[in-house]
Amino acid sequence: MNDLHEMAANSREAAWTLAASSLKTRNAALLRMAETLENHQADIFAANAADIHQADGLAAPLLGRLKFREEKLRAVTDGLRALADLPDPIGATTMTHEITPGLKMYRVTCPIGVIGVIFESRPDALVQIASLALKSGNAVLLKGGREAERTNAALCDALREAAADVGLPADFAQLLHSREDVAAMLKEDALIDLIIPRGSKEFVTENAKVPCIQTGTGICHIYVDKSADVEMAVSIAVDSKAQNVAVCNACETLLVHRDIAADFLPKLLPAMQEKHVRLLGDEATRAIIPVEAATEEDWRTEYLDYVLSIRVVDSLEAAIAHINRYGSHHTDCIVTRDDAAAKAFLTRVDSAGVYRNVSTRFADGFVYGFGAEVGIATGKLHARGPMGLDGLTTYKYKLLGDGQLMAEMKTGQRAYTHLVLHEDCPL
Amino acid sequence: MNDLHEMAANSREAAWTLAASSLKTRNAALLRMAETLENHQADIFAANAADIHQADGLAAPLLGRLKFREEKLRAVTDGLRALADLPDPIGATTMTHEITPGLKMYRVTCPIGVIGVIFESRPDALVQIASLALKSGNAVLLKGGREAERTNAALCDALREAAADVGLPADFAQLLHSREDVAAMLKEDALIDLIIPRGSKEFVTENAKVPCIQTGTGICHIYVDKSADVEMAVSIAVDSKAQNVAVCNACETLLVHRDIAADFLPKLLPAMQEKHVRLLGDEATRAIIPVEAATEEDWRTEYLDYVLSIRVVDSLEAAIAHINRYGSHHTDCIVTRDDAAAKAFLTRVDSAGVYRNVSTRFADGFVYGFGAEVGIATGKLHARGPMGLDGLTTYKYKLLGDGQLMAEMKTGQRAYTHLVLHEDCPL
Repeated sequence: MNDLHEMAANSREAAWTLAASSLKTRNAALLRMAETLENHQADIFAANAADIHQADGLAAPLLGRLKFREEKLRAVTDGLRALADLPDPIGATTMTHEITPGLKMYRVTCPIGVIGVIFESRPDALVQIASLALKSGNAVLLKGGREAERTNAALCDALREAAADVGLPADFAQLLHSREDVAAMLKEDALIDLIIPRGSKEFVTENAKVPCIQTGTGICHIYVDKSADVEMAVSIAVDSKAQNVAVCNACETLLVHRDIAADFLPKLLPAMQEKHVRLLGDEATRAIIPVEAATEEDWRTEYLDYVLSIRVVDSLEAAIAHINRYGSHHTDCIVTRDDAAAKAFLTRVDSAGVYRNVSTRFADGFVYGFGAEVGIATGKLHARGPMGLDGLTTYKYKLLGDGQLMAEMKTGQRAYTHLVLHEDCPL
Repeated sequence: MNDLHEMAANSREAAWTLAASSLKTRNAALLRMAETLENHQADIFAANAADIHQADGLAAPLLGRLKFREEKLRAVTDGLRALADLPDPIGATTMTHEITPGLKMYRVTCPIGVIGVIFESRPDALVQIASLALKSGNAVLLKGGREAERTNAALCDALREAAADVGLPADFAQLLHSREDVAAMLKEDALIDLIIPRGSKEFVTENAKVPCIQTGTGICHIYVDKSADVEMAVSIAVDSKAQNVAVCNACETLLVHRDIAADFLPKLLPAMQEKHVRLLGDEATRAIIPVEAATEEDWRTEYLDYVLSIRVVDSLEAAIAHINRYGSHHTDCIVTRDDAAAKAFLTRVDSAGVYRNVSTRFADGFVYGFGAEVGIATGKLHARGPMGLDGLTTYKYKLLGDGQLMAEMKTGQRAYTHLVLHEDCPL
């Protein structure tokens, strides 16, 4: 506990320095990180080989995420250089009002401060998270999956070295090593401002005193409306389920309108079989295609595997109700030619991403144009959907006056002007 | 528990209807509310008289907040009519990208859903909260202080009647009656999206499964810098402390730089005595003016009364450290003629409002030009400072495609365009 407390205190110190650092210095750090990762390539690949060796027996999709070789190194260094090109997310004046003559209010973006991130065994995520945090002036405490421990350590060392090289605190990123560290982190609400658990981390959200933003729990749905283009529905369903099964934006449950089920399901079956997807269905589905029985539990399950549950629904309303009840508020898609049905679905499905006629696999910070993401938020507060630089900032109201008193406003000695201005905060 | 669960389910139903309602209908409801409150005036004043009678013995500042007569009725009806004039906070497209030809992403604002608000014995707050919620398409569960129970019931009846008159669900606003209701509300995370406890409500934030935004805990500071205009510092300190002591933006602790303390404190003393403010000070303060001794506990105390604690600090850095350690991240002011000191204070004080040379009493949604507020948020996530209509909304990403698949993007059959567009979402 003591060690984690000290680490958090060091993060807080680093955060003060970062909050006051220039964009030029933060961008220099990002470019230096790309170089340092390239220079440390041999160490990083050796660490990853050791992790892979140790992880013998891990399922293939998870091994794919754990592996960190040339292709992923290039992806993260490309990402770092692209991030350096993005505008400064902090210090931006987003609202200016004159309250009364001589008194102006400025709303100015600023870093959140110290952020704890718990993430899966995917080393490229470490680089993305740490670099987004640095660009937005935040310090991070990182806890990755244990299968990736050696790779994460090698990557984090390189990033810390790069930050120090340009004069920023190496402690902008620190690695936690144990569940005890995580448990201790959850209680440090005086030093840590936000915890982002990626994936289903009920232990975290239920035990944290620090505010949490839940990300990456993905029970995504495709709803095939009665007016769907059947061929498009099949291809979207296959892409959403099978293009990559190990990710949170993969589809887990397919809902199909009763009026189109007899046409659609027999076309879906061979397409899914070709991708080796195991299908489970409710009674109405099984009356049309020969699949195993789905239970109530299936509607609540994020398989992250080659498995899809299917349910026949009587109406658009029933589809919306199912999604709002069993889904994880991540990303849900309607396949339809009917504008009114699309509008109702997009308005009433209570999810971060509501799609018409496009694969759920598009729910991603890079795809949305945000550069990268820390996670895909499934709650409604602060950030929703892919959290990029915006999601890692907050704001403060700066008021610059010359002695204004409320007593003068109450007595009418001074009057409110409430002018909307367009100027940046000078301080 | 069951009753509250049913109420929450009714709120959720009402929220669906509100989310899909037109601005015209919501504004009609606001105007009808103003009329209905005026029509129910006799009942409301009678209920308030009964509350006031029952509250015999309440401190004067709290009695003032509880009292609801002509002046407050006019303030809330003026507020309702002004709110009807504000633009629609929901359904606004705040970002549009073309991801790839034929596929557009729209970020569209929407209501949060069902919001629970726990507030003090101040009946005008009920009208403000309920009307901001309705304008932003949210349903609210309201728990006011027990001293105001009859007034709140009369006001809530009028607002519900007005909503029903224009065809919106009366259950957009429902009143809770007991601590048991509150305890049950904290656990309804499947039906309630957000709880806003106003004032210091540790019981709520520590026990809630529903996400909370803490508002209205105000340990605000004035820091008198060594380069302050002493006369201005005295008037700002008096206004911040004594213009209204019962509010969260009143000053509770004054910090003064050692180099100016001997000049400033003897001028502060008579000005505060004139307002009947009791002063407490640390040793260095008591070496200059004759006041009672302050203890460590005083630095953590929100008096909400005619009491001010005073501490002499050695430097700007010490003032910032004190505020970040003991403050509540609400609103803090530096009085200084030095731009560099102001900039350091505004950057490094970790509060929703950071002021230079203006009374802390300006921290208010009306003063900032937001119309009204649900509370002043002291956390850093979602909303910070006065929470108006913006703070009661979230957004969702709507993607409209014509069959785009991730497999096509990965193989290069389709390319990312990432064009920033300026158009509203058609659905």
